[in-house]
Parts: sequence; C-alpha cells; structure tokens
Amino acid sequence: MDTRRFFLEQKDMPIRWYNVQADLPEPLPPMLHPMTKEPLTPPDLAPLFPMELIMQEVSQERYIDIPEAIQEIYATWRPTVLHRAYNLEKALDTPAKIFYKYEGTSQAGSHKPNTAVAQAYYNKKEGIKRLTTETGAGQWGSSLAFGCTLFDLELKVYMVKVSYNQKPYRRLMMETWGATCVPSPSPDTKAGRDMLAQDPDCPGSLGLAISEAVEDCMMRDDTHYSLGSVVSHVLLHQTVIGQEAMKQMEMAGYYPDIIVGCVGGGSNFAGMFLPFVKDKLEGNKPDLRIINVEPESCPTLTKGLYAYDYGDVAGMAPIAKMFTLGHTFMPPPVHAGGLRYHGMAPLVCHLHKLGYVEAVAVPQIATFEAGVQFARTEGIISAPETNHAIRVTIDEALKCKETGESKVILLAHSGHGHFDMAAYEQYLSGKLVDYAYPEEKVKEALATLPQIPGQ
Amino acid sequence: MDTRRFFLEQKDMPIRWYNVQADLPEPLPPMLHPMTKEPLTPPDLAPLFPMELIMQEVSQERYIDIPEAIQEIYATWRPTVLHRAYNLEKALDTPAKIFYKYEGTSQAGSHKPNTAVAQAYYNKKEGIKRLTTETGAGQWGSSLAFGCTLFDLELKVYMVKVSYNQKPYRRLMMETWGATCVPSPSPDTKAGRDMLAQDPDCPGSLGLAISEAVEDCMMRDDTHYSLGSVVSHVLLHQTVIGQEAMKQMEMAGYYPDIIVGCVGGGSNFAGMFLPFVKDKLEGNKPDLRIINVEPESCPTLTKGLYAYDYGDVAGMAPIAKMFTLGHTFMPPPVHAGGLRYHGMAPLVCHLHKLGYVEAVAVPQIATFEAGVQFARTEGIISAPETNHAIRVTIDEALKCKETGESKVILLAHSGHGHFDMAAYEQYLSGKLVDYAYPEEKVKEALATLPQIPGQ
Repeated sequence: MDTRRFFLEQKDMPIRWYNVQADLPEPLPPMLHPMTKEPLTPPDLAPLFPMELIMQEVSQERYIDIPEAIQEIYATWRPTVLHRAYNLEKALDTPAKIFYKYEGTSQAGSHKPNTAVAQAYYNKKEGIKRLTTETGAGQWGSSLAFGCTLFDLELKVYMVKVSYNQKPYRRLMMETWGATCVPSPSPDTKAGRDMLAQDPDCPGSLGLAISEAVEDCMMRDDTHYSLGSVVSHVLLHQTVIGQEAMKQMEMAGYYPDIIVGCVGGGSNFAGMFLPFVKDKLEGNKPDLRIINVEPESCPTLTKGLYAYDYGDVAGMAPIAKMFTLGHTFMPPPVHAGGLRYHGMAPLVCHLHKLGYVEAVAVPQIATFEAGVQFARTEGIISAPETNHAIRVTIDEALKCKETGESKVILLAHSGHGHFDMAAYEQYLSGKLVDYAYPEEKVKEALATLPQIPGQ
Repeated sequence: MDTRRFFLEQKDMPIRWYNVQADLPEPLPPMLHPMTKEPLTPPDLAPLFPMELIMQEVSQERYIDIPEAIQEIYATWRPTVLHRAYNLEKALDTPAKIFYKYEGTSQAGSHKPNTAVAQAYYNKKEGIKRLTTETGAGQWGSSLAFGCTLFDLELKVYMVKVSYNQKPYRRLMMETWGATCVPSPSPDTKAGRDMLAQDPDCPGSLGLAISEAVEDCMMRDDTHYSLGSVVSHVLLHQTVIGQEAMKQMEMAGYYPDIIVGCVGGGSNFAGMFLPFVKDKLEGNKPDLRIINVEPESCPTLTKGLYAYDYGDVAGMAPIAKMFTLGHTFMPPPVHAGGLRYHGMAPLVCHLHKLGYVEAVAVPQIATFEAGVQFARTEGIISAPETNHAIRVTIDEALKCKETGESKVILLAHSGHGHFDMAAYEQYLSGKLVDYAYPEEKVKEALATLPQIPGQ
C-alpha cells in the first residue's frame, strides 16, 4: 500500500524560524513612517509591537530560535501532515504527483496560529495585557483569540463587515475563546465612524479594519496591535510550514517542480515557499516554479503597481514598498475574505519583482468548482482562499496530462472551509457570481498613493 | 520538552477489526424480526445490508481483516493522534494525567467515517447504487456522504428536523459531497407523513428518521440502508480507535485507570473501549473503569429498562435487547443531537448489564461549561456530544485533586464542534437551558414495548 500521509514526530519539529532576509540578493526596501515618510526605526514601532517582534521584523540573521514556550504550544497541533493526493490524481487521470501540506488541523483550522501563538507569547512576555487586530474571513481573528486565551491576554477583533455577516460562526469561535469581535467599519473608532458617515452600507475592507485596530491600540498603554499577515515577522513564523514540508517531501522521495499557494497578505504561502526559495536563491533549483494565486477581483501581484503605499485605508499604518491596488481600494465581496487585501507582503513582492516567484489570478466560480472536486476526491472541504490554490494545482496537473509530464506539485493547503459553507451553498445552488476586475476603481485608488521622494 | 502528541505511522494502522463477540462470557441476545418476533436470520437482513456486513453483525471471529481498499481510505486521515492534555491538567491543578484520542481530524470531523467508508465499500462491492440513512446532529449523514462520494454511490439522508434547523451547514456539507438531505419527519415516506399529520411541528427523533430511511430503502431494489451506530458491525469498524489508542498509550508509558466517552448509539465510545474491555474480560484489568456518559434528558443506560424494543419509532427496524426509554420516546431538543436515541448499542448494554462498564448522566449546561474550559486550554472547540465526556473527564480529574491520586484518564474525543457554534452562542449568551428528565413521557413510551414471549 502506497504511503498517503507523511508524519513527523514532535522531535522533528523545526526549532528555528527561517529568515529569508539573510539570503536576499538585494535587501528589502525599508518601511517608511506614515507621517514623516522617513525609514521606520524600531522605536517608531514600539507603540504597536513588542520589541522582540520589531527586531525580528528587521533581523538579518538566517535563523531565529523558537522559544520553548511557543514550541510547546506548536506541539499541540504540529507537525502537520503532508498528504499525497492519490484520489485527486486518479480523478484527473494525470501523471502529475500531487502533494498537499494541510494546515487545517490546527485548533483554529488554518495556518494562522503559527504566528498568533508567537505574537501572543512575545506580547505577554513584555507585560502587555490586551491586543487589537483586524480580520478578513475570520481565520486570523479566531487564531489570535486562540493564542490570546492560551497566554491570558484580552483581545478585540475588528472583522470586515461583509465577512462578519457571511461568517457568524467565526465570531462565535472568537467569543468561545474569550475575545470580543465587532464588525468593521465600527462606531468604536474615528476611522470607522468617518467611513460609516460616508457610506453606512460600506462592506468594509482589510485596510479599513487595520486602521481601526491600530487606532484602538494607540488609545491605550496596556494594548498592542497584532497583524496576521503582510509583515516580515509574520512570514518568519510561518516558515515552520515549509521547513516541515521539505523534510516530508524528502521522506516521500521527491523535490517539487511546482509549489502552489493562495495569497492575500501572503503569509501562508510564503511560510511554505520561503525555505524552498532559499534553494533558488542559492542557485540550486533554478527550474522550481513558485506560483502565487490571487482572485481576479483583487489581483495585487498580477495587476498592481510596485510602489510605496500605506498598509491601511486611513494611512496610519506604516508605508511599505509592495504591489498594490491602492490603499483606498475596496475589493468586491468575494467569499475568500482573506484574499481581499489591497497590498501584499513586501517580502513576497520583492521576490516577485526579482523574478523568483510568479503569480496568476483566477475567477471565483472556477475556484469553487475546484474545491468541490477536491472535496469529492480527497474529502477535505477547503476554505475559499485555499480553493484558489486548488484551482491552479488542478490546472497544472491537467497540463501534465496533456504533455505527459509527471511533475511533482506541492500545494500549500491553508485550511478547512467549515465556516464557509454559506459560500458553498451559493456555489451549489448556482448563485455564486464572478466579479470583473474593477479597473476604474483601482485607477482611482492608485491616484491616492503617498508622495514619496524618488518614487 | 514533554511529548504532547503520540503519532502512529500508516504502517502501524490496525489491519483487522476487533470483534468482542468472540470474548463475551455470555453471548449477545439475538435480534428479533419486527414482524415475527423470531430471532433474525441473515436473509432477513438482506434487503437492508450487504451480506458481508450481515455476516460481520453475527460473527464470532475475534478479528476480521480490513480490506485494503478500506485501509487506503482510512490512511487519508488515520491513524489519528493521541494528545496529552497538559494545558487542561494545569488549569485544573490536578495530579491526574489526562489523554485524549481525537477523531475530529477526519474529513467529516468525527469518528463516523470509520464505519461510513467500510459500509460504502461493502455496498459498492455488492452492486448497490444508492444508500439511505438517518442522521441526528448530522455527523453521521455527512460522514456517509463522504464515504459514498469516494465509492460513487448515491445517498439520501433523513435528518432529525431539530438538528436540520440548528445545523444548516451539516446539510451543506452533505450536499458538497453530493448527497441529498431532507428534514425528518418528511413527506417522502409513510412514516414521515403519519407523524406530520399527527404533529406538524414534531422536532423529529433518531428513531423516526430510521423508520423513514428503512422505508425508503424497502421501496427500491438498487438501494440499501446504512446505520451509523447501535448495531454490532458499526461498533466493530470503530475498534480501529481503541486499537490505535492502546498502542499510543503504550508509547506514552501508561495504561488508563479510567476511560470516558459519550454515548448516543454507543459506537464511538465502544470503538474506543472494546479493545480495552478485552483486558477486563480476560481478567487482567479488573480495576479499569469504563464510564459511558449520556444526557440527563435522554438517560438510556442510567434510567432505561433492559428489554427487547424496536430500534425505530415505527417498529420497522429489528427488535433488540437493550437499555431503552421506549421506541416512541421523543427526547427534548438538546444540542447533542447524536445523543438523542431512545436505545443503545446492544453490545454496550450487554457489557453494562454484565458489569464491565458503568454509566453516568449529565445536564446540558454543565457540558458546555466543560467544553468552553477545554477550548480555552487545549484549544479544540468540541462537539456538544463530546462535551458530555469532557464534563466527566474534568469531574474525575477534580476528584483526583481532592484525593491526591494521579490517575490516568483516557478521553474518547469524538469530534469538533465547528457546526455547533449556534449551541455555543446559546451557552455564551446565557440562553442555554437544562431539561429535566421527562419521567412521565418515558413511562408512556415504555408502555409501548413489543410483547416478546418470556420478557
């Protein structure tokens, strides 16, 4: 009987995070202060983050030790399993070999706890009592609620309103773990009130929810802010995924030809591909393809501008060099709430700009079609975000069928879709729609980029 | 760092199911035909089940080989992990050592696929095209939908109406896997129509849904019926849980003093305890306590009568000797839909009657209190059914705190509560209620037991 799942023992868990900044051919452009537009210094970030996370953000060390207290919590669900998708391969009748690393068995159901637990730990260690954050689909908010309950921290979550309404059970999950969750735009902050005055029916966006969470954090001394994606320390924490996957692919006897993942802020997929991109950066695997998949309606990497832009709608968060659709862009309400961000992790953008990774955009209905095929073969009902990656995995496997090539495809499977069944209902009843790329809205939003000398 | 999770490799998966019937000191009383009230013969069951399952139902062989096609599917989520609940132990400040075997990482989120996959396989092998079944909370219906999609069988699920309304996403899960799901009582069968005529607002019961599924099966030659609990072949398939747990407890270096699980039909917990009860039957572990936990509002083992009764409301299913509250008993609409059955697996009842296992009943609110404590320590948000077992696990661990004993408690954790968040909302908002034991209704229901010579 062929081996279908590849396990690692607790003792094989990574004990360090991999920091790609040590291996970049050109350094990452610095983040800028939203007011002065000067390069950010660690003290600038101190009102938001604990110092150890700030130092990780700019560290040039190749490896950073994972504290034992974090390893102990990781060990409650990690290492996660690598699966060989034999059933899907058979259904597609493809010579491709499809593997997927499944992060959906974490308590919160996705990869997000990998950084949530780390961030809760460092904040607790610095004496912080309370965190604020934003969440799109709710994956991040619930994961941070999980992290905060373990380290006895209060948490307030600003949840993008369209997702808050679509996914009530994600909110309940946060509340079960003891957190407070409000829809964004909310009346609790100036950023929220301003938006509500302008458009009471505003569906919200990740950028706006960030503004609210940052503003809330600034109002209290015992409070820090926590970010679930985009920034470099989050990507760092996620590298446990790729480090484990490398060992597991070795157990399986293969090195991937193609790695596929979905990107919203970019942390899940970067967590998978960064340890592999190291091989490319060292010149060892020039042919390895790393495919970032995003929604056609929010195509940051494929249609965005590579420019300095604010991380949030209100212009309170740091300015970063990234592919962006403009920080005031409000994406259509696709079900993949986690992929509705106007920007993208600067590290992912930098590697894309340098040509180490590629990107493709896919329409919503086709992603659910792929997700249902995956569910009916591999069994797992996946998150709408993940369905984007599954779509491209299937497309690549079907290309192999045409060419007869037996490529090895590694899918970064970010989580289950148990809280997204309303989206499946829309798909199954034929009510799901595709959204055209909102070109005019992007043009308007790109006109609001900050003026940066030399940009 | 202490080991928190105990893994088995695919090669360590059980390759045989354990059949406790080979080791019983007294044989299981035979099931009776619902019309003739004579002992059932294999041909009597042939309209319902494939012959291989019928032979398993009555087999006296100690071990039955698991076909490779089933092992291959099991390997997509099995072996499941055994956890040490260090966080919970610490929160309780108990010297007890708490382990839990977690079945929630199956694609359907519970232990149910262990038998769903097996039943789909044997039916497919016998040329059957379509299955019918009932489901309470939806765990079983969705699991069988998963099994049927893998073996390309049609499926119609009759879902107890109170759960159908409380848990719309379980239905969507079934539909995502390609099954059809209707609320029971339904207008699709005579049993359903009769009940609707009598009480249009009837919340349904597992017993009635069984009647509907059996009646539907009888109407078509290409259709068989499938049962998610109670009968012996289902318990047999579930013994993969206990066999794995035994190996994993050995890895951990302990043998349990107490094993705890929730019981509705009894299959999850029997799947865990049967391989351990073998040790008791052989006289090796006389002090091992095996605690069946049930709801106070449906206390089959603790308040029921040990008598021959119908498996379903309409009296179409076989008659079995079991603890029963009466086949016409309609339990209150507790959230643990999977624990709302009037009877109990005859094997569990037989072992209870013989004194090898014990039982306790707990009220609803206390189970959610335990579930939230578990969520805030171990992270997992558990099914309402499982919360019953968690309640008693915590109670036993707190007793250890009083006595200073360092007992080893093994919890059979049957699944996650991702589709039960509405129940958590009721609990968190203080709206959850306890239901008193409906003594009068049970008395009425027990008056309708079938007349069996010698009973």
